Amino acid sequence: MYDSILAHVGQFIDLEPAEIDYFTSLLRFKLLRKRQYLVQAGDVCKFDSFVVKGCLRTYFVDDRGSEHVVQFAVENWWTGDLYSFLTQSSAAYNTDALEDSELLQIDQASLDELYRRVPKFERFFRIISQRAFVSAEKRVIATISQTAEERYLNFIERYPGLDQRVPQHLIASYLGFTPEFLSRIRKQQASRRK
Amino acid sequence: MYDSILAHVGQFIDLEPAEIDYFTSLLRFKLLRKRQYLVQAGDVCKFDSFVVKGCLRTYFVDDRGSEHVVQFAVENWWTGDLYSFLTQSSAAYNTDALEDSELLQIDQASLDELYRRVPKFERFFRIISQRAFVSAEKRVIATISQTAEERYLNFIERYPGLDQRVPQHLIASYLGFTPEFLSRIRKQQASRRK
Repeated sequence: MYDSILAHVGQFIDLEPAEIDYFTSLLRFKLLRKRQYLVQAGDVCKFDSFVVKGCLRTYFVDDRGSEHVVQFAVENWWTGDLYSFLTQSSAAYNTDALEDSELLQIDQASLDELYRRVPKFERFFRIISQRAFVSAEKRVIATISQTAEERYLNFIERYPGLDQRVPQHLIASYLGFTPEFLSRIRKQQASRRK
Repeated sequence: MYDSILAHVGQFIDLEPAEIDYFTSLLRFKLLRKRQYLVQAGDVCKFDSFVVKGCLRTYFVDDRGSEHVVQFAVENWWTGDLYSFLTQSSAAYNTDALEDSELLQIDQASLDELYRRVPKFERFFRIISQRAFVSAEKRVIATISQTAEERYLNFIERYPGLDQRVPQHLIASYLGFTPEFLSRIRKQQASRRK
């Protein structure tokens, strides 16, 4: 159950056997069935969640009632509403499962304790947060500067294979396209690959 | 010279006098005149730079030769091309000074040494990176879901007073607007405030 999270953490920091035992003792296993919610807007996001298996989406409902996909999370991603988790304030986003999903979760108090007892985890979360920031900044740039086609190709690169796992209208929402527009772009791409 | 950076760091971690001395010994003072570059696309971003005074912008030039403002940095912000700095690869972005600016810089080797000798700095950079990530993610959402007016108001909130410090066409670029469109939004706002 812990293989993937330990391999993921091990890419950035080296842990002693006792540290591994302590870290895994803080994790809580969570199974989410397809369509179940991990966090709902308005609630506090109590856990930072690592995806062992499955696929989730984080989305936002605007004042006009439209849904906008903020993030997809697949194997080896962390998910939830980070702002809500860090500040223990109400979540602005919803996160639900698009497939049956297996998660490993850690709550704020356990994470604080982990930082105190194994400060290397500050390093781990520092590195993955910097990467997440760089990637979010790239997405901002993509949204304001790239053509629709470039944004679609970037999406395929960022989330390999996801195109086949989630409904097209959610991918359209992530990209800020209408479903019809995404369908047109995909057809153009397919005809170029022939 | 170190007052603002120490106050900023002190918001997140407590440093002993010896740690303060060591930290400040790693910093390099840099004066940038208006229009001078901190980093140019294609070069490696060698420093993470803290703004003591002044204002810089980070921008990106797309394949069609159009400039897009990625970020503004004012007092108490860190700036540069983070991806390039972290990976020591070529910068995709340019950062230049919009006003005469005073910076405190740290290079990658010194920062690694700082992490080793004063691991609390892992915590400091973990926290500011998480905040930067949350804020970049909000901007993605704003770009795809908010009205132009809401985005302008968010900008004013995120960068208080900047509206009076930098040319309007750069703010338009940051927001993904044409300058004419921004000017219309500002007039609408001004007439509502009357």
